[in-house]
Amino acid sequence: MPSRVFGPEIDRLIQQLARLPGFGPRSARRAALYLLKKGASVIQPLAAALSEAAEKIHPCSVCGNLDSVEPCSICADPARDRTTICVVEDVADLWALERTGFGGSYHVLGGTLSALDGIRPSDLNLARLVDRAHAEGVREVILGLNATVDGQTTAHYIMDQLKGSAVAVTQLAHGVPVGGELDYLDDGTLNEAMKARKPI
Amino acid sequence: MPSRVFGPEIDRLIQQLARLPGFGPRSARRAALYLLKKGASVIQPLAAALSEAAEKIHPCSVCGNLDSVEPCSICADPARDRTTICVVEDVADLWALERTGFGGSYHVLGGTLSALDGIRPSDLNLARLVDRAHAEGVREVILGLNATVDGQTTAHYIMDQLKGSAVAVTQLAHGVPVGGELDYLDDGTLNEAMKARKPI
Repeated sequence: MPSRVFGPEIDRLIQQLARLPGFGPRSARRAALYLLKKGASVIQPLAAALSEAAEKIHPCSVCGNLDSVEPCSICADPARDRTTICVVEDVADLWALERTGFGGSYHVLGGTLSALDGIRPSDLNLARLVDRAHAEGVREVILGLNATVDGQTTAHYIMDQLKGSAVAVTQLAHGVPVGGELDYLDDGTLNEAMKARKPI
Repeated sequence: MPSRVFGPEIDRLIQQLARLPGFGPRSARRAALYLLKKGASVIQPLAAALSEAAEKIHPCSVCGNLDSVEPCSICADPARDRTTICVVEDVADLWALERTGFGGSYHVLGGTLSALDGIRPSDLNLARLVDRAHAEGVREVILGLNATVDGQTTAHYIMDQLKGSAVAVTQLAHGVPVGGELDYLDDGTLNEAMKARKPI
C-alpha cells in the first residue's frame, strides 16, 4: 500500500505495531485505526506504559527475572525458600510457575542450548547458575525446562555441571495433564504416567 | 494472576496491550515479554509513534478521514476529482478503496445506522454529506457501504436524503469476487452477478 494514503505518522504507527508478536500488517492497521478512533485518552496511557517499562524494567542480576528493582522482588523477598532454585528457560515460564504458588527461587536461562540455532552454554545464564547452586544452604535445583529436545539437552548439560556437588537435581514430573483425556494423549506421556503411577 | 508476580510497571504494560483489538490477556503477556526482552531500542520507537499519532492525527473536518493536516491530504489534493464523492462507513474502507486507485473524494460516516445498537442519523457524519452533495459541481455520490443489513439501511437513508437533488447516486457492483469460485458463492451474490452480466 502506498504510504501516502496514511501520511507518515499513521504509517509509522502501523509499522511499529506490526512488529508485535501475533500482529501482521493487516492486524496492525486494524489496531492503529482502533487506537486513532479512541484518541489520546487511550493512546497516551499505552505510550506511557511502554516508556515506563523501557526505562525501569531490567533483568535481575541474580536470577534473570525482569523487574524494576535490583535484585528482583522474588530474589529480595525474605519469605521465599532460597534453598530451592527452579531453573526455567524464560520469564514466561517463571510467570507460569508463580501461578502455581511455588515459593522457592528461580533461575532464568534466557533460552536453551541449541546446536541448530548455534546457542552455546556461554550464550545462556548458566555460569551464574552453577555458582548459585554451590552457594551455602542450597539443597535442590529443580529443572523446570520444556520437555522438548533442546530443553532436555539443556537439562542434561546442567546435570553434568552439577555432578559431584551436594545439591539434589530434580525435574518436573511427566504425566496426564489435569482435565486431559487419555485417548488424546501421546504414547510417550502415557508411558511416563504409567511408570510414575501412585497409590491413591 | 496476582500482579505481585510482575510488579506494577509490567502489569500496567500488559493491561494496556490487552486493550488492543485481537489481543487477550495471554497474547498481551507474550507481547509485553517480547518487548521487554528486546529492550528500549524497540519499545521507545513504538511509544514515540503512539505519542506522535495521539498528538497529530485528527479527523478531517470535510470528509472525516484521519490525517495530521486539516483538511486531510486527500481533500487538499488539487489533482483529485471533487465531482465524485464516495461514501464509506469507516477509514479502513477508505484505505481499502485508495488501494484501487480511486481518484475521487471520500466521505467517512463513522459507522452505519443501526436500530439494534441505537445509532441514529445524528450520530453519524450525515448532515455534512448532504451539504457536500448539494455543493456546486458535485455530480455523483457513490455508496461504498458494506453489503450488510445496516450498510444497506444506511444506503437507503442517504438515497432518501439526496432525492430530488441533481447528483447521481450509485453503489458498488455486486458480483463474483475476482479469483472466487462459483460453487462457494452464496445464491444472492450469484443471482446479482447473473442479472448484471456483461458482454465480453
